[in-house]
Amino acid sequence: MGKAIKDQLGRVIEREDAPQPAVILVRPQLGENIGAACRGMLNFGLTELRLVAPRDGWPNPAADAMAAGAVELIENAKLFDTVEAAVADLSYVLAATARRRELEIPVVGTTVVGREMRSKVEQGVGILFGPEKAGLTNADVVLADAILTYPVNPAFQSLNLAQAVNVFAFIWAQSEFMSDAVKPDMGAGVPDYFEGVRSDVAPREDLTRLFNHMEEELDNAGFFFPAAKKHLMLQNIRAPLTRAQMSEQEVRTFRGIIKALAKGRGNARGG
Amino acid sequence: MGKAIKDQLGRVIEREDAPQPAVILVRPQLGENIGAACRGMLNFGLTELRLVAPRDGWPNPAADAMAAGAVELIENAKLFDTVEAAVADLSYVLAATARRRELEIPVVGTTVVGREMRSKVEQGVGILFGPEKAGLTNADVVLADAILTYPVNPAFQSLNLAQAVNVFAFIWAQSEFMSDAVKPDMGAGVPDYFEGVRSDVAPREDLTRLFNHMEEELDNAGFFFPAAKKHLMLQNIRAPLTRAQMSEQEVRTFRGIIKALAKGRGNARGG
Repeated sequence: MGKAIKDQLGRVIEREDAPQPAVILVRPQLGENIGAACRGMLNFGLTELRLVAPRDGWPNPAADAMAAGAVELIENAKLFDTVEAAVADLSYVLAATARRRELEIPVVGTTVVGREMRSKVEQGVGILFGPEKAGLTNADVVLADAILTYPVNPAFQSLNLAQAVNVFAFIWAQSEFMSDAVKPDMGAGVPDYFEGVRSDVAPREDLTRLFNHMEEELDNAGFFFPAAKKHLMLQNIRAPLTRAQMSEQEVRTFRGIIKALAKGRGNARGG
Repeated sequence: MGKAIKDQLGRVIEREDAPQPAVILVRPQLGENIGAACRGMLNFGLTELRLVAPRDGWPNPAADAMAAGAVELIENAKLFDTVEAAVADLSYVLAATARRRELEIPVVGTTVVGREMRSKVEQGVGILFGPEKAGLTNADVVLADAILTYPVNPAFQSLNLAQAVNVFAFIWAQSEFMSDAVKPDMGAGVPDYFEGVRSDVAPREDLTRLFNHMEEELDNAGFFFPAAKKHLMLQNIRAPLTRAQMSEQEVRTFRGIIKALAKGRGNARGG
């Protein structure tokens, strides 16, 4: 954890138990964007907002209005005159901006930045976002340890400030699942893929009974024609129903379907 | 690639050379959010927007105003009456929503979804986003192959629509850098669950026709009893058959099954 520092309003910065990156908006212009950024932060669990010289002063009612359920971040936002002051207690600072060939600053990509920040978060980390129009100046960027670039469309690079913050917050939240600790599960991660389904997948014998039932009724209906193709047709029935990993309830539904559709065939009642 | 389909305005859908997921906004309310979603899409290179029954009609000047440099997406947005029509030419559909324990739908996480979609994008993929307040209904979600959930803050889950789209667009763009080439870095190879099935997955409209056919014949057979449960029973039919990612041949086989079993019911020939 970094040292406690005081912001412009004299409030002491104290971190929550679970350390997290500070989001630092440098000379933001529109209160609406600050408010929307707060929403995007809180959606993904980030709560530490720092503001450097917001154009329209602080507090700003336009920010409150846009923050919706995230006004707590607005109220706790720390205010600074300079970027230097805003990063004073941090040990690792990123600048969210396009690459700058003219600066000798490393570039970190979105696929690794989460792990990078998590490895350093105990010492205090933060990320700078520039003002809406002009973005960060070189003077801002050289205060950072690395540049974070998003894989943007070269023909339409300029992200809205709040969306840029939102994407960062997402990256942070997601990186919890990409840390070393869960790495092995991630390849197994696919098990998680079917989580909602797996709990009650029907035992294979239920499927077998369903297949036998279908085969019998389809035989009665003269479905397997020509007979030489029966084997292939059965495969076309079994394969998708097996892949579907059906629950017991779903298997029952399909047995009901066969029964309902076949009813009336054998006894010629016509349904 | 799916077949060409026409939207409500009679425009034919043609995909660009580099296939990409369609972003499908289901019953969106505010034009501003549609416009902001377009910006967020184009920032990360997505251009295919589909709208299902936008509340305030279409075109919508409020959307134009917010789209800023992304008006091209607005102009090319395709308009549909129903979700079924909007996904008709797709073979793999996601629903962006929180997990739903009551539905038998797989859940895919943000760390694997990019690769999952890239592996299927040639056959046509898309993602559903629900309306601002209510989100997607279960009836919408069962049209999807899987649910995509974001790692959101449980205490503040509700993402702004445009930000939700923006995060997805980012995930898509980023996943280009998480392809097989860099797989080892990612914490290793997530086996592709549907590998082997993928080459000829039937377009969604074939499935819709199969479901309609089944529903009609099951109605004739008096299967949906009690009537109040019909909705749930249909879900139990659609969910597994959707999950199965059936090939065109398999869909034809199932249509043949329905036909064969139902034959003789209507005309009382008794098969």
